[in-house]
Amino acid sequence: MTEPQTPEPGRSGVSRRGLLFGGAVAGFGAAAAIGTDALLNRGGDAPATTETEAALNGEETVAFYGTHQAGIATTPQAHATFIALDLHPETGRDALRRMMQILTDDAARLTQGLPALADSEPELGTVPARLTVTFGFGPEFVTRAADASAKPVWLGPLPAFTIDQLDPAWNGGDLLLQIAADDAFTVAHATRMLLKDTRSFASVRWTQTGFRRAHGSEKPGTTMRNLFGQVDGTSNPAPDGDDFAELVWNTEGWLAGGTGFVLRRTRMNLDKWDRVDRGGREQSVGRTLANGAPLTGTHEHDEPDFDAKTSIGFPVIPEFSHIRRARSENTAERIYRRGYNYDQAPTGSEISNSGLLFVSYQADVTKQFVPIQQRLDQLDLLNEWTTPIGSAVFAIPPGCTDGGYIGDTLLS
Amino acid sequence: MTEPQTPEPGRSGVSRRGLLFGGAVAGFGAAAAIGTDALLNRGGDAPATTETEAALNGEETVAFYGTHQAGIATTPQAHATFIALDLHPETGRDALRRMMQILTDDAARLTQGLPALADSEPELGTVPARLTVTFGFGPEFVTRAADASAKPVWLGPLPAFTIDQLDPAWNGGDLLLQIAADDAFTVAHATRMLLKDTRSFASVRWTQTGFRRAHGSEKPGTTMRNLFGQVDGTSNPAPDGDDFAELVWNTEGWLAGGTGFVLRRTRMNLDKWDRVDRGGREQSVGRTLANGAPLTGTHEHDEPDFDAKTSIGFPVIPEFSHIRRARSENTAERIYRRGYNYDQAPTGSEISNSGLLFVSYQADVTKQFVPIQQRLDQLDLLNEWTTPIGSAVFAIPPGCTDGGYIGDTLLS
Repeated sequence: MTEPQTPEPGRSGVSRRGLLFGGAVAGFGAAAAIGTDALLNRGGDAPATTETEAALNGEETVAFYGTHQAGIATTPQAHATFIALDLHPETGRDALRRMMQILTDDAARLTQGLPALADSEPELGTVPARLTVTFGFGPEFVTRAADASAKPVWLGPLPAFTIDQLDPAWNGGDLLLQIAADDAFTVAHATRMLLKDTRSFASVRWTQTGFRRAHGSEKPGTTMRNLFGQVDGTSNPAPDGDDFAELVWNTEGWLAGGTGFVLRRTRMNLDKWDRVDRGGREQSVGRTLANGAPLTGTHEHDEPDFDAKTSIGFPVIPEFSHIRRARSENTAERIYRRGYNYDQAPTGSEISNSGLLFVSYQADVTKQFVPIQQRLDQLDLLNEWTTPIGSAVFAIPPGCTDGGYIGDTLLS
Repeated sequence: MTEPQTPEPGRSGVSRRGLLFGGAVAGFGAAAAIGTDALLNRGGDAPATTETEAALNGEETVAFYGTHQAGIATTPQAHATFIALDLHPETGRDALRRMMQILTDDAARLTQGLPALADSEPELGTVPARLTVTFGFGPEFVTRAADASAKPVWLGPLPAFTIDQLDPAWNGGDLLLQIAADDAFTVAHATRMLLKDTRSFASVRWTQTGFRRAHGSEKPGTTMRNLFGQVDGTSNPAPDGDDFAELVWNTEGWLAGGTGFVLRRTRMNLDKWDRVDRGGREQSVGRTLANGAPLTGTHEHDEPDFDAKTSIGFPVIPEFSHIRRARSENTAERIYRRGYNYDQAPTGSEISNSGLLFVSYQADVTKQFVPIQQRLDQLDLLNEWTTPIGSAVFAIPPGCTDGGYIGDTLLS
């Protein structure tokens, strides 16, 4: 086999030649070169499209480089995989930098429909389908990368909630990969390529996979329903709204332009939920099932009237309802949600093993997420049917420029 | 709660009132009624579409009733779940008939974007996204439904192959549900509704979930690639081709219009595959990775030339290659494939737990599938990287008319 002549996309300022491991390049480079070469002729970031191809949503891309990482303000894709890695004991600061350079380079390529540098199946990388890759750092990562003083005060396990039944199999982690696209195959291929990059540095702690409606299934802008059938996320701040930046983007030190990430794996007991009638279901959340309108309104985005009373004097939106408990008088106590449903194979007479990957982003986890969760922990009728079984917090570093890498504000 | 006035879709000739269990109707009927009522006003099989809605692929439906069950000649959807159920010991012929009537009715509704009759989350049933539900019967089902003489000779475990490393967790079963759609959420909801229907009659033996490219990711007609990156299924008979009917549809007795179903869960060792260079990969299958052309051709659908020799006299398409071994001189020894990729969470230092849900349909499993598999068992280089870990055979009964039910040729 001849020495591979792998073209380097001009967008990537990180030389991978020096980072990679000889044997792997010899083995895979030639393969990667074929796909890369063809693809680079498309012109890089803007793939050439004929009229026929223009309609393919598989060709849509989301920019990788920028002030913030992609995959947060990005309109949620249909499929997402969240992976937490444990760093190997010997993975120190220099190794972390190398790992993040490699990961950044491959994430940048894959999201633009180019194969990873050492892509063993380059033809599988040609359908970006709005792929985004978002990285997050756990407390151990930050401590090894800098020192404990670099760690945001909120970066660590959440305070204990009485409703929690956490399984250590779904908790914590040192490095987060959030890989999302409108095509499950694209997510699978990107996942494999990126995990190969991390293999010398870390091992998989947990993997959680979820879905939303497919691209084109519903009108754009339709609020997701969860597996209870509820419209879920109506009052979410809009990424193009006035307060999004303040709520989501951190402004301090190496994390400026980054954010805080919370993933709560929340099991939903669908069998128990089946025993509740429609009225009870609507009371538990405070919204109608038909269109998600508050029980005091007619349209989904109507403002709930928490003072409204029924003819016999009870609140129309009950005190124990989810929307009342989740809401704070303090408008800073808000979060940006971007969750996914999960549905795993039931066994035996079980007919569901399902729930929500509750995912939220907020500049400060302690000030924004925790008070909401504390109120819900004290009183929220939905607690009858939902149980947090996993919990993880990561610091999402800012985006990077072409030439930089994710984490460079911490590692360089 | 008032007695629910659930409308009955005119298309369904099976009265569900007499079949359902009082309590469940009281609990869920009202909920179902709301969604059903709104949806029935669409006009049944052809949902009303405005110009805006016309572009939503979530609204596309596949007809349920017909000579053959849907989900076989149907262009493969992006997501599929295969579920095998074990019948409860007490589930006899009458119970099987009731179960199939209930399942047929709900499958007919769900595939047309209507909620199941006792749908606890009717709003989740409104995105059919080309949903199909296909039922299959195992040997125990047929024996209980009629008697052992009704069992096709090929209906039972396949002969042992030397490459098999079957895990009983993925083998066999009495009743198959194949649930496929272009939207993972649609599959999840239909799965839950149909498993609720079976709960009194059977329990889940195994569930296998797979994916192909998303709707709109690639040009229609693109042959699927598997996780090895190979174009996989080029020589598959086309559902609109001349020989499809003869190869796929059975013509005898209660199974006339039905077919034989084989699912082989085939683990693909991606880590080992990584150690093979591109040339070796192409030799193993006999096709190029770039576009799936045979090594003697330039286009995917070029006919392979098995007599072509290299300059030093070796066959261009090696003797041990997959396409040579899979091909028979006997043109009747062919099958129709409709498989899905699977990719489950790896653990620890593993970076993949992936493979292919190899699914094929053929009129006679013994005459068509078995000889192919025997040739591949004896010599197929791909065996180095692939391992069958599950195996199941079902008889897929014919479709039914509006007013009938799936299995009525056996059960009525």
